[in-house]
Amino acid sequence: MDGTRPNVQTFIACDAPYEEARTVIFGAPLDATASNRPGSRFAPAVMRMESFGLETWSPYQRADLAERRVFDAGDLDLPFGNPAASIEIIDGFTRRLLKDGKKPCMIGGEHLVTLGALRAAASFYPDLRVLHFDAHADLRCDYMGEKLSHATVLRRVWEILGDGRIFQFGIRSGCREEFEWAAGRVCTEMFDCREVGRAVSEIGGAPVYVTLDLDVLDPSEFPGTGTPEAGGLSFGALLAALLEARSLNIVGFDVCELSPHYDTSGVSAALACKTLRELLLAY
Amino acid sequence: MDGTRPNVQTFIACDAPYEEARTVIFGAPLDATASNRPGSRFAPAVMRMESFGLETWSPYQRADLAERRVFDAGDLDLPFGNPAASIEIIDGFTRRLLKDGKKPCMIGGEHLVTLGALRAAASFYPDLRVLHFDAHADLRCDYMGEKLSHATVLRRVWEILGDGRIFQFGIRSGCREEFEWAAGRVCTEMFDCREVGRAVSEIGGAPVYVTLDLDVLDPSEFPGTGTPEAGGLSFGALLAALLEARSLNIVGFDVCELSPHYDTSGVSAALACKTLRELLLAY
Amino acid sequence: MDGTRPNVQTFIACDAPYEEARTVIFGAPLDATASNRPGSRFAPAVMRMESFGLETWSPYQRADLAERRVFDAGDLDLPFGNPAASIEIIDGFTRRLLKDGKKPCMIGGEHLVTLGALRAAASFYPDLRVLHFDAHADLRCDYMGEKLSHATVLRRVWEILGDGRIFQFGIRSGCREEFEWAAGRVCTEMFDCREVGRAVSEIGGAPVYVTLDLDVLDPSEFPGTGTPEAGGLSFGALLAALLEARSLNIVGFDVCELSPHYDTSGVSAALACKTLRELLLAY
Amino acid sequence: MDGTRPNVQTFIACDAPYEEARTVIFGAPLDATASNRPGSRFAPAVMRMESFGLETWSPYQRADLAERRVFDAGDLDLPFGNPAASIEIIDGFTRRLLKDGKKPCMIGGEHLVTLGALRAAASFYPDLRVLHFDAHADLRCDYMGEKLSHATVLRRVWEILGDGRIFQFGIRSGCREEFEWAAGRVCTEMFDCREVGRAVSEIGGAPVYVTLDLDVLDPSEFPGTGTPEAGGLSFGALLAALLEARSLNIVGFDVCELSPHYDTSGVSAALACKTLRELLLAY
Amino acid sequence: MDGTRPNVQTFIACDAPYEEARTVIFGAPLDATASNRPGSRFAPAVMRMESFGLETWSPYQRADLAERRVFDAGDLDLPFGNPAASIEIIDGFTRRLLKDGKKPCMIGGEHLVTLGALRAAASFYPDLRVLHFDAHADLRCDYMGEKLSHATVLRRVWEILGDGRIFQFGIRSGCREEFEWAAGRVCTEMFDCREVGRAVSEIGGAPVYVTLDLDVLDPSEFPGTGTPEAGGLSFGALLAALLEARSLNIVGFDVCELSPHYDTSGVSAALACKTLRELLLAY
Amino acid sequence: MDGTRPNVQTFIACDAPYEEARTVIFGAPLDATASNRPGSRFAPAVMRMESFGLETWSPYQRADLAERRVFDAGDLDLPFGNPAASIEIIDGFTRRLLKDGKKPCMIGGEHLVTLGALRAAASFYPDLRVLHFDAHADLRCDYMGEKLSHATVLRRVWEILGDGRIFQFGIRSGCREEFEWAAGRVCTEMFDCREVGRAVSEIGGAPVYVTLDLDVLDPSEFPGTGTPEAGGLSFGALLAALLEARSLNIVGFDVCELSPHYDTSGVSAALACKTLRELLLAY
Repeated sequence: MDGTRPNVQTFIACDAPYEEARTVIFGAPLDATASNRPGSRFAPAVMRMESFGLETWSPYQRADLAERRVFDAGDLDLPFGNPAASIEIIDGFTRRLLKDGKKPCMIGGEHLVTLGALRAAASFYPDLRVLHFDAHADLRCDYMGEKLSHATVLRRVWEILGDGRIFQFGIRSGCREEFEWAAGRVCTEMFDCREVGRAVSEIGGAPVYVTLDLDVLDPSEFPGTGTPEAGGLSFGALLAALLEARSLNIVGFDVCELSPHYDTSGVSAALACKTLRELLLAY
Repeated sequence: MDGTRPNVQTFIACDAPYEEARTVIFGAPLDATASNRPGSRFAPAVMRMESFGLETWSPYQRADLAERRVFDAGDLDLPFGNPAASIEIIDGFTRRLLKDGKKPCMIGGEHLVTLGALRAAASFYPDLRVLHFDAHADLRCDYMGEKLSHATVLRRVWEILGDGRIFQFGIRSGCREEFEWAAGRVCTEMFDCREVGRAVSEIGGAPVYVTLDLDVLDPSEFPGTGTPEAGGLSFGALLAALLEARSLNIVGFDVCELSPHYDTSGVSAALACKTLRELLLAY
Repeated sequence: MDGTRPNVQTFIACDAPYEEARTVIFGAPLDATASNRPGSRFAPAVMRMESFGLETWSPYQRADLAERRVFDAGDLDLPFGNPAASIEIIDGFTRRLLKDGKKPCMIGGEHLVTLGALRAAASFYPDLRVLHFDAHADLRCDYMGEKLSHATVLRRVWEILGDGRIFQFGIRSGCREEFEWAAGRVCTEMFDCREVGRAVSEIGGAPVYVTLDLDVLDPSEFPGTGTPEAGGLSFGALLAALLEARSLNIVGFDVCELSPHYDTSGVSAALACKTLRELLLAY
Repeated sequence: MDGTRPNVQTFIACDAPYEEARTVIFGAPLDATASNRPGSRFAPAVMRMESFGLETWSPYQRADLAERRVFDAGDLDLPFGNPAASIEIIDGFTRRLLKDGKKPCMIGGEHLVTLGALRAAASFYPDLRVLHFDAHADLRCDYMGEKLSHATVLRRVWEILGDGRIFQFGIRSGCREEFEWAAGRVCTEMFDCREVGRAVSEIGGAPVYVTLDLDVLDPSEFPGTGTPEAGGLSFGALLAALLEARSLNIVGFDVCELSPHYDTSGVSAALACKTLRELLLAY
Repeated sequence: MDGTRPNVQTFIACDAPYEEARTVIFGAPLDATASNRPGSRFAPAVMRMESFGLETWSPYQRADLAERRVFDAGDLDLPFGNPAASIEIIDGFTRRLLKDGKKPCMIGGEHLVTLGALRAAASFYPDLRVLHFDAHADLRCDYMGEKLSHATVLRRVWEILGDGRIFQFGIRSGCREEFEWAAGRVCTEMFDCREVGRAVSEIGGAPVYVTLDLDVLDPSEFPGTGTPEAGGLSFGALLAALLEARSLNIVGFDVCELSPHYDTSGVSAALACKTLRELLLAY
Repeated sequence: MDGTRPNVQTFIACDAPYEEARTVIFGAPLDATASNRPGSRFAPAVMRMESFGLETWSPYQRADLAERRVFDAGDLDLPFGNPAASIEIIDGFTRRLLKDGKKPCMIGGEHLVTLGALRAAASFYPDLRVLHFDAHADLRCDYMGEKLSHATVLRRVWEILGDGRIFQFGIRSGCREEFEWAAGRVCTEMFDCREVGRAVSEIGGAPVYVTLDLDVLDPSEFPGTGTPEAGGLSFGALLAALLEARSLNIVGFDVCELSPHYDTSGVSAALACKTLRELLLAY
C-alpha cells in the first residue's frame, strides 16, 4: 500500500496491466432467473475477497499465479431483473476482450451469463466447441415460458452452435424431455467426468469454451450453490478433468453459480478460488 | 388429520372455504429486481410454516383469527426473471378476487408485487389511496434503466393514482432526486409513523390499499430482509399505526420483503406472522 | 393454482387421490427422546417445501415420480413430550393404511417413530424382516432408564420380531454392551453396506420393512442430523444399496432423523428429498 | 490452573465451597415438551462457557460477584423424553438445597422445570408467592392432552398455590381460554412490567419464588429462544423490574428457555449471563 | 467500468483523488488481543463491500456523500500476532496523512488500533481531547500482564494525554479497579450519551479525536461484535450524540470492533456503513 | 452428580486422578497469528462440551476410553496477543507433565502451540521425530516479518530437530520457497498419507511426537477451520494412518486448528472429538 492510490481489489495476484495481460477476469453478477435459491450475484466480489486466503503457488501444476499476466477488470454493471439486457452487456464486453486479443475469464453469477460470453466467442470462432461441467443438463426449451433461464442456457447455446459441439460432464439432474431431446445432439456423460479424454481427442485443435457450473461438485464439498444435487464430483476428480483439457485450444472460460450466502462455513468460496487459480494457470 | 385428504397448508386458521371467505390470502413470490440481497420469494411458504408457532388469539385486539373467514389460496406461479409478466398475473388474480367480493391480502415477494395488486384495485376503486409503510421511498423513476424495480414501485403507483394519493411512513432512505421529486406529490413522514392519524382524517371514507414493506421495522427486530436500514420503527409503533388505520375503508393490503434466508434466528418470520394476524383481524 | 381451493402442499408430485394411491406418505414429527441435538420434528414439513427444488425424473432409475400414484397425507398430530402416546398414534395410522392396501412411507421425526410403524407392519406380516441403515446400533436395553428412546428402538423391534430378522448396515457407533448383545441376534455390517446383496438372498420373498436413519450417511454429505458420526456412507453407496433391495417384497419404509435447523446450507434436506424420490420410485 | 486437579467449570466466579455457599446454581436441562423450537437443554452448559466474556463487577448494582458465596453444582441428569421423572429429580434436588439452607438458582431447560423447583419450595414455604416474567401465560389446562408441558406449567403451579399467589408480567401471548380462566385467579400485567412495585407492596414479607422465562424479552434482544414473540420487554425494563423485587423475601429463582442453537450471533447467551449475574447479586 | 483499469473498491462514493481529498479512509485490520470473540480484521473489507447497499444521500443531514472529497486508501498491512509493530505502522501512516493536511478516518480492527492513530494525532495536536463511545471502559492497566490490549487502550491513551482529556459515553462494563481509577481522571457517562452537549461546551475549540467502539450500541442493533453487552445505545441516540459533536474541531476519527462473522444477518455491517456515512458527512 | 462438589467438565470419560493418569489432556487456546480466519481459541472448551455426544467405545479399535487412565487438566491461561509468552507457558507445562511421567495430549488453539509442546518434548527426547499431518507445509521462514506464526511453526521445529526428523503428510498448500527449502530436509508426502508405513519403518523405536492440524482433512468433512483447503484427506484415510503409527514410541501428541465458530453444523467438532478418542486409545 502506497497510500495515495485508491484501494485496488483483484483476484489474488491478478494485477497485470490490461495492455500486458493475456487473460482478463471479469465478474458478471447476474442473478435473476434462478428457479431455486438466488444469490450468485455476490460471487465475484466474495471470490476476490476470499482469494487472499489462497497461496499463489499451485502444488498441482507446480506453477505460480504471480508469474502469469492476468488483469482483473472488476464487475460489469448489469440491470437488475433484465436478463436479456444483461446478456447483451456481457456479449459486448467479451467481444471487446477478444478483439483486444485477451482470453476472457468470466465469474458468474448464474449460469445464464454463459450465453453472453459464448455468443461473443462463437462469433469470433465459428468452429467453437463447449466443455460443460454441471449437475444439470440446462437443456430445457423454456422454463415456465421463459426462454432465458439458467435452466435453458445450454439449449440456447446449442441453437448457436448446433449438433455435436457440446460436451457435458457430471450431469445428474434434468427432466425426461431434456434427456430425450439431447440424444444425438449433445454428448453427455452422466454422473461423472471420466470421458474428458475422449472429448479432447475428438475436438482436436478446434477452439473451445469451458463453462463450469460449480454445482457439478458434490454438495458436501460445495454447499454454497442454489440447487445442491447429491452424488456429485469430488474436487479431485473435477480438477483432473479440467487439467486433462489443458491441451485443448481454450479461448475462454467461466465459473458460475457460487451462491455465497448459502456457504455458511466458507468452504465453497475457498474451493471456488482454488479452482479458479488452477484454471488461470492451466488455460 | 383425516388421512384421506391431501395435506393442506394454510396460514394458521385461514381455512374458510373460498365461497364463504371475506378475505383471501395469496402469495406472490416474485424476487427478481432486488438490488441488494434477494430471497423474498421464500416468504409466503415460510410464513405459512412458521405461523403454527403463533396463537390465533390476539391480546392486542382481543379477537381470535379462528373466528374470521379467511381463505388461503396458496402461491401464484410467477415466471422467474420476468417481472412484467409476473405483475400481469398478480393483477389478473387480484381483479378476480375483487370481482368475487373478496378482500385481497397478498404476501410478497419483493415490493414490486404491489404494482400488480394495486393496479387491479385502482381499476375497481378509481378513488384509491395508498398507505405505504417502508424504510425506502421507492420513488425512483428507474433503476439502472429499468422501470420495473422494487426501488421504483411507488413511482409506478403514482403514475396510476396521481398526486396526493400516497401517504408514506417510516421512510429513512432514498436518493436526493426522489425526495425532491416527491415534494408536493406524495405525503411523506420521515423516520416515524406518528402522523397516521392525520392521514386517516384526510382520507376519510375513500377506499384505501395498505402496503407494508416490512423493512420499515428496525433491523434489530426484523433482520430478515434484503436491505436492512438502521433507525427503523419498533413493532409496537408499527402495530399502533396499523391499528389506527383500522377505521379506514381498506380494500386490500399486502406485506412484503421478508427474506427468510437472512432471518438466521427466525425472529423476522415470527414477527411477520404476528403482524399478518393483526392485519387480518383489523382490516 | 385454481385459486378457489385451499393451498395443498405435498412432497413433489405426490398428488394422487387416496383411493388410487399405491403408496401413502405421512409425517411423524416426534422429537422427544433425542439424547443429543433435537429438531427432527421439522423434517416432514421442510422436506415437502424443499422437494420443489427437485426434478421428478430420476436419471438413476430412468423413471418419473409424476407417473406414480403416491398420496401425501400430511403430518400426524403427536403430543409433545409423550413418546408412548405418539407411538400408539403412529401404529394406528399405519394399520389403517395397511388395511386399505396402501404401502406406508413414513417421514420422521426421530428414529423412535419406527417402532410404531413397524409394530403395525409386524401384526400384518408376522414373518417381517427389517433392513436397517444407521450410524448407530440403537440396540440399548434402555437409555437413562427409559425403554422408549431413539437409542433403543431396534431393541424394541427385536422384542417383536426375534432373532435373525434384523439386518443392519453402516453401523459405526454404539456401546460395548450393544455389540456384545447383538452377536447372534442381529446381523450387523459395520462401517459399510456392501453386504446388502447377501441379505437380499437370505430374505428371499419374506415381507420387509426398510428403515433409514439418514445419519448413516457421512456428515459431510448430511450434516443436518442430531448426532453426526464421521466415517459414514456416501450418497452413491447408500443409493446403490437401497436400489439393490428393490427386488425384495417391501411392505413399508421410512426415512428419519433429518434435523433441518442444523442443515445450515440446505444440502441435507436436498439429499433427503432426492433419496425419498428414489425410494418412492424403487419400492 | 494448578494442573493436577480436574477441570472445574462454573458460572463465572461461582466457586465457593458448597458448605460456605449461600446460593447454589444448578442446571436442569429438560427439553421435552417445547411445542415449537427445542434446544433449551444446552442452555446451562453454554451459559457457563459464555459467562467468561462477562465482568464480575456490576455497574448497575455496584457490586462484585466475586465477593459473593455461590456454588455451581453442575447439571442434573434428567431422563430424555420423560418429563414426569425429570420433575421428580428437580424437586428432590431442590428440597435438599433448601434443607441445607441454600437458596436454589436453577438454570433451565424449558419452563416446565419450574414445576419441580417450585413444588419443593412450596412444601418448605406454604405461604409462597410467585413472580413470573414471561411472554406466554403458560396457564393452559393441558396441551394436546398432556398435563405436563411448558405451556401448562403455571397452571400446575396454581394447583399447588391457589388463587392470588401468582403475579405475571410481560405476558403477550396465550389462547382465549387462558386469559378468561386467569381472571381473578392470577394477577397478570399484559405487555409490560411496570406494576412490579404494586406486587412488591402486596406481597410484603411473604416468601417469593421468581421464575424468569427469558422470552419475556423482545426477540431483538433475545432471539435465542424457542418461541420468539415480538413486542417484548427491553433488557433495561426487565432489569429494573427484577431489581425492584430485591426487597422481597426471595427464597429461590430460575432463568429458563434460552435455546442456544437459535442464538446465531451469541447475544442471547451474553444477555442471559448478564441477567443471571444481576440476579445472583440482587437476590 | 471502463474495463481497462483494475478493479477499484472503495467505501461507497469515496473516490476523490488523494491530492484533492479532505478526508482519507484507511483500514487497520488488527485483530490480535481480543479477549473474547475475534474477527474484527475482516471489518474494513466487509464494510467496503456492503456499503453498496447504502444510499449516498443522508436524510438525517440532508447531504450527499457523493459531493464530498474522500479518498479510500485501502487497508494497512499489519503483521499478524504483533500488536506493537501494528501500532507503529498505524501511527506512521496517520502522521503522514496529518502532514499532508488530510483528516484520518480509520476503520478497525480491534479497538487497540486507536492507540496508533491517536498517538500520531496527539503529536500534531498536543492539546488533543478524545470523545470515546464504548460499552467498555478499556481503562485496565494491563490484561493478563499485557500492556497492549483492546481492554487497556484508553489507559494507554490517558498516559499520552493526561487527566481531563478523555470523555467516555455509553460505558456499561468494566472491573471495579477501572472505575475507581477513572474517578477524577476521565469523564465517564455511564449507560448513556446524553451529556455529549456538556462535553462539547467544555472542550470548546480544542482539537478532538472521536473514537467509536461500535459495541456501544445495543447488541440487538449491532450483534456483530466480539463482546456484546446488553443495555446499549440505540442507533438513534448514538447518531444524535455524534451529530451533536459536529461543532467541535474534529481532527480525526475511527470506527472499531465490527466483527463480521458474528453478524449472521448482516444488519451490523449495514449499520456500521450508515454510521460511517454520517461521520464522513458530519466531521 | 453428588451436588456438593463443583461442576467438573472433562473430555468424555477422561476422569482419572492426576496421580494415576497415564495421559494428560490440556487445552492451549492460543489464537493470535492466524493469517486467515481466527477462533481456534474456543476449540478445547467446545470439544469438551461436544464430547458428550460421543460413545466411549471405539468400534475401530474395539476398546473403551472409560477403561483408560486419562486426566483432563483444563486450559492453560495464555496472554492474549503475546505468542512468545504463550509458547513459554505451554513449554513449561509440558515439561512438568513429562517430568511426572505423563504423556501430554494438547488441544489447540492454532498450530503455533505445537512449538511449545515440542520444544519441551525435544529437551526430554533429543532423538525426537515428528509426524505432521496438515494441509499446509508451515515451513515459512517468517510471515510478514514474524518468526512466530502458525505458518512458520514447523520451520521453528526444524530449527530444533534438524534434517530428516520431520515427516509430513497430506500437504497441499504452501509457497514455492517452502517446497524448495524443504527438499532434503523434511520428508513430505503431498496430497495423501499412504506412506505412513514407510515412515514408521524408518523411525523404528525413536521417540515420536504426533502433531495433527485438523485442516489436513477435506473441508467437506471438516469445514470448521481457519483455512479450508479443498482436496484433503477423508476421515477414514486419516484414521487409518494415525492407527498405523500406533506401533511407534509416541511420547506426546496434539490436535489443532478446530475453529468452532465456522463449524456451523457442528460436524467438525464431532469429528475432532472422535479423532481425539481414537488417539487417546491408540497412543
